[in-house]
Amino acid sequence: MFKASFQNDYSEGAHPDILKTLEKSNYASMVGYGEDPLCEKAKELIREQLGENRDSDIHFVAGGTQANLICLRAMLKPYESVIAATSAHIAVHETGAIEATGHKINTVSTEDGKLRPEDVISVIDAHEDEHMVLPRVIYLSNATEVGTIYHKEELEALHRVAKERDLLLFIDGARMGSALTAGDNDLTLEDLTRLTDVFYIGGTKNGALMGEAILINNASLKKHFRFHIKQTGALMAKGRVLGAQFTGLFQENLFFRLAKHANDRAEELKTGIKEEGYGFLSETTTNQIFPILPVNVVEQLEKHYRFYRWAVVDEKHVALRLVTSWATEKSTIETFLKDLKEIAANA
Amino acid sequence: MFKASFQNDYSEGAHPDILKTLEKSNYASMVGYGEDPLCEKAKELIREQLGENRDSDIHFVAGGTQANLICLRAMLKPYESVIAATSAHIAVHETGAIEATGHKINTVSTEDGKLRPEDVISVIDAHEDEHMVLPRVIYLSNATEVGTIYHKEELEALHRVAKERDLLLFIDGARMGSALTAGDNDLTLEDLTRLTDVFYIGGTKNGALMGEAILINNASLKKHFRFHIKQTGALMAKGRVLGAQFTGLFQENLFFRLAKHANDRAEELKTGIKEEGYGFLSETTTNQIFPILPVNVVEQLEKHYRFYRWAVVDEKHVALRLVTSWATEKSTIETFLKDLKEIAANA
Amino acid sequence: MFKASFQNDYSEGAHPDILKTLEKSNYASMVGYGEDPLCEKAKELIREQLGENRDSDIHFVAGGTQANLICLRAMLKPYESVIAATSAHIAVHETGAIEATGHKINTVSTEDGKLRPEDVISVIDAHEDEHMVLPRVIYLSNATEVGTIYHKEELEALHRVAKERDLLLFIDGARMGSALTAGDNDLTLEDLTRLTDVFYIGGTKNGALMGEAILINNASLKKHFRFHIKQTGALMAKGRVLGAQFTGLFQENLFFRLAKHANDRAEELKTGIKEEGYGFLSETTTNQIFPILPVNVVEQLEKHYRFYRWAVVDEKHVALRLVTSWATEKSTIETFLKDLKEIAANA
Amino acid sequence: MFKASFQNDYSEGAHPDILKTLEKSNYASMVGYGEDPLCEKAKELIREQLGENRDSDIHFVAGGTQANLICLRAMLKPYESVIAATSAHIAVHETGAIEATGHKINTVSTEDGKLRPEDVISVIDAHEDEHMVLPRVIYLSNATEVGTIYHKEELEALHRVAKERDLLLFIDGARMGSALTAGDNDLTLEDLTRLTDVFYIGGTKNGALMGEAILINNASLKKHFRFHIKQTGALMAKGRVLGAQFTGLFQENLFFRLAKHANDRAEELKTGIKEEGYGFLSETTTNQIFPILPVNVVEQLEKHYRFYRWAVVDEKHVALRLVTSWATEKSTIETFLKDLKEIAANA
Repeated sequence: MFKASFQNDYSEGAHPDILKTLEKSNYASMVGYGEDPLCEKAKELIREQLGENRDSDIHFVAGGTQANLICLRAMLKPYESVIAATSAHIAVHETGAIEATGHKINTVSTEDGKLRPEDVISVIDAHEDEHMVLPRVIYLSNATEVGTIYHKEELEALHRVAKERDLLLFIDGARMGSALTAGDNDLTLEDLTRLTDVFYIGGTKNGALMGEAILINNASLKKHFRFHIKQTGALMAKGRVLGAQFTGLFQENLFFRLAKHANDRAEELKTGIKEEGYGFLSETTTNQIFPILPVNVVEQLEKHYRFYRWAVVDEKHVALRLVTSWATEKSTIETFLKDLKEIAANA
Repeated sequence: MFKASFQNDYSEGAHPDILKTLEKSNYASMVGYGEDPLCEKAKELIREQLGENRDSDIHFVAGGTQANLICLRAMLKPYESVIAATSAHIAVHETGAIEATGHKINTVSTEDGKLRPEDVISVIDAHEDEHMVLPRVIYLSNATEVGTIYHKEELEALHRVAKERDLLLFIDGARMGSALTAGDNDLTLEDLTRLTDVFYIGGTKNGALMGEAILINNASLKKHFRFHIKQTGALMAKGRVLGAQFTGLFQENLFFRLAKHANDRAEELKTGIKEEGYGFLSETTTNQIFPILPVNVVEQLEKHYRFYRWAVVDEKHVALRLVTSWATEKSTIETFLKDLKEIAANA
Repeated sequence: MFKASFQNDYSEGAHPDILKTLEKSNYASMVGYGEDPLCEKAKELIREQLGENRDSDIHFVAGGTQANLICLRAMLKPYESVIAATSAHIAVHETGAIEATGHKINTVSTEDGKLRPEDVISVIDAHEDEHMVLPRVIYLSNATEVGTIYHKEELEALHRVAKERDLLLFIDGARMGSALTAGDNDLTLEDLTRLTDVFYIGGTKNGALMGEAILINNASLKKHFRFHIKQTGALMAKGRVLGAQFTGLFQENLFFRLAKHANDRAEELKTGIKEEGYGFLSETTTNQIFPILPVNVVEQLEKHYRFYRWAVVDEKHVALRLVTSWATEKSTIETFLKDLKEIAANA
Repeated sequence: MFKASFQNDYSEGAHPDILKTLEKSNYASMVGYGEDPLCEKAKELIREQLGENRDSDIHFVAGGTQANLICLRAMLKPYESVIAATSAHIAVHETGAIEATGHKINTVSTEDGKLRPEDVISVIDAHEDEHMVLPRVIYLSNATEVGTIYHKEELEALHRVAKERDLLLFIDGARMGSALTAGDNDLTLEDLTRLTDVFYIGGTKNGALMGEAILINNASLKKHFRFHIKQTGALMAKGRVLGAQFTGLFQENLFFRLAKHANDRAEELKTGIKEEGYGFLSETTTNQIFPILPVNVVEQLEKHYRFYRWAVVDEKHVALRLVTSWATEKSTIETFLKDLKEIAANA
């Protein structure tokens, strides 16, 4: 019925190379709960990406909300809070999972979904004493929920604020692959181990069946982390499944190749839409783009493609969110652009 | 190095038929978060097992601790507690996951891991007023943590107590397959929908990569259940993976065939060990057996097989826990029994 | 050293009539935990104020944060949230107490600290599915944190929205006395029992040593409320102390007389400051006023009076918060105004 | 109607000297939230009892359940648990307040309500890995819930175990006064600051209207403790009320005199009952005694006195709990014993 979906980056199963890792190891008898050889192998492969900073602890969990709530409950004392952009996934789309662990989120409204040092400082300065929460963690997402990314200079500035103000820096990397392979990216996983206390690398939105790899870079946060995973129900009996996903992803550079693939498709989509004369809600370089189209054109597109209407721009225009993935084919982009051209011509 | 493992029932990956379901559906584009056609198919297949009681709500989550904590937080008000056997998984082996949701577990010591009406009543009667928690849920596991099972008459008696005392009845079915295919079992999934408010069917320990199917039979507990799943981080983006597991399990009776296979291997093991003249800690009919062996025999066995020493019986004897699974081969049992015979002869 | 404090309304002990109630009953042997004759008497006296709606359940707790967190945890399921103004006490000044019970606060920015139906609806409409919290309670404070009050028409409109959208309405009445005795007030305690599901009447900020009286008007919220009080550590062994406070307050109209006294002093202060030609940050009719004064005048005042600088208005002006109480004497106001006049003349 | 109550030690208001401290300070204007001169004075007076160990941080809260839950949430990480006797107040009579903060209580059954090193070690040794909670705090009560006390040697032994096993030691001192003035006591407040990480001194059950003084002796637990108090709703606006209670209690040795008074009355009661030939459930030296009386005698006594039936001993005998307090008069004991004699003679 639908020609294609640009609704999200988790509409298909896994990349075949990842499935293969799973199948090949299927009959081997392994110990449970993530202490198996596949998890060890995956950790080694990830560590190879960390340059000089290989002593991060690595843990695998199934999903992003899980990763966020586990990391934050491990970083925060009961009265401590986390600073995040108003658009942050933890603030909007996790059904209050962070508050359910007992912690307030101090949100700051930002146009592009990114926090800057002054945002962090404004929150800190507004909190004075024991009648208010104590802001303690800076939550960033990279790429952000609106497709933007952090550059090295920006992250270094936030890192400095964190050090100066005794804060912890945490990055939600559900779309880390897309961020690190964006055309204008200048960050590496090695940088992230140096500049953050904890971050994670998303597999679910980059070709795995499921799985996020949490890297704990701050030594003081390493102890007993597995207790948090177990207590929240996130320690999988067959942890090998997560090991297989990340072994697959970090063999032969697959993780970066898949993310680059998605970004390239988004770039083609962006270029084609621009050529039709349309503008964008924001300038993004990852696998999410936000073109502004006339409502009547959108209505026609919706008959053939799945995507979200993101925001009403004015009476006659709406911004869409189009998401590409490892599974988006070049030909799909071409068909979409051709359809758009035709629809626009007749609109 | 090791000839075989009897350590648990989740040492291998998935049964090949389940893997196949996953692979076959891998490239189809599906909506996320468990609202995909595979999950729908799996629910249909499960409902076919429910006879007249097909209106239970069904939800899939990845693991047992997750299923336990989500179901209990959905059933309990903040001041309410859950009654369980001292040996209950939630009481011992979930890192305080239930308490982490704010609820006390009232434990009752029982020899065989099973609760009886008088156990429940003793807890209820000991709780008088608002200075104490209000016991509200009866937690059973079937099969129990020590391999025993509930019979229909027993469950009906507990069901009656629940009705009389305004309690809810919940069954942890991480090993439900093994229970329902035990030689002396007289319960069906249909019975369970009638006799419990909530229960779940374990896939992880019966041949799936992961997955537990939660059945909500009490209409008053159905509303907004997905909010609980999401808030605890258990709503998988690619929920299709869970759908695929249960589609695989409930096609062509696989779920019951795998469980029966494991039980049969345990039975062979039990018979063989008995023939050697050894006794057992308890009489079980599922895939866990607890033979009592001389320490020097055990020490020899440990060189070739993986299993847990379960309890010290006396200075010279120890009880083992031997667990079989869908993947345990008949030849493995034969080899083990042969080795045991030899070791015993030379001991 | 200081001539007087306008810092808050809880700087002194209790009104002598309340102390007397405490002393007179001191030696009587009474049952504990709020089931004593003094609590019963206090409840009767409060019920006399409720006109036709006397069947509210009444509970006493020591403080406002306690009242807020207990009422909200009793009203909300784990995934439900509370809607409040950005300036709400629960959102800013309770160290994340509500989040510590697991619940998100959805804040709406309002100029005067009051929520309106459109504010509530905007929050509701932004919440779509199980990926987001489910807003369930409207939290108001009357008087608000910035001294404003709700009028009957406004509260009726919010009540209608609550009914239409299946929401609960809760009023934090830490300064309820001041609100109900404001010159422009048209609400009664009877109205509140009809228009809200739960509200409380503040004693601490109106002449008691401590104590807030919670009224539960919605029958479905009454059951087991004492379990919430006990579980949060708020059930006082000598509950009689709270009974004595409210017996004192609701005998001979003391509650309303004390609040009116504070409001009258604030009015005098306001009039006097206006006469000096100064403006106000907002128009309030309760015991909090927010005059805008030149910084150099403020610096002089600070040598003799205690108060908070509330907001920087411009480089040379600052808004103060001046709070009066049952204990503020008329002569104190006169002295302050005289001092202000002198300081201003010399500035 | 009733001649007297032996039901508990909080049936009356406050000792007149404490009320006087409250009244005398009533009109002074003081800062809120426990930073007032009365709280400072009370802390000084308590510190005078601490000998060489005066650098403990001291905080006041209103009640025992509050003190327990605040201290434990401040001492425990989410996955850590507290070890307590099965009869512990936190395990039975606080409506799951500790579990509501997310923590499991590991209970050990003991005959006299006291924990011993082997009890603690048995719990520690049963906890192996991240599938189980991590026991971290030893909870003692002194006097215990059944009237027994700890001696110095016993506490030192527990202190050693705590050091060896990296545990924290916490004492619930709701009845600390009674313990420290028992005939066979050899502990001092100074000892407690040395041998525990945190403990509290109960005012509520020893003549105050309310109030427990928490002493934090372990420097690593001091930081940000007030955030915990505020977040749980326990930071009283008029903290002066708690300051007044403890100023009253620790002036002129009142705290110890009141406790000794209660113990003396219990001793007289015990002696008199023994003289009548009755035995006791346990040997206690504090203000709680547990005589075993014939049921028909008890039935007569219940017409004139309030007390709890504690335990059924056999068909014809029941153990009572009789509690004395600062307010129990010598003549009341004499009357009771006279009545008992008469009733027994006619039984």
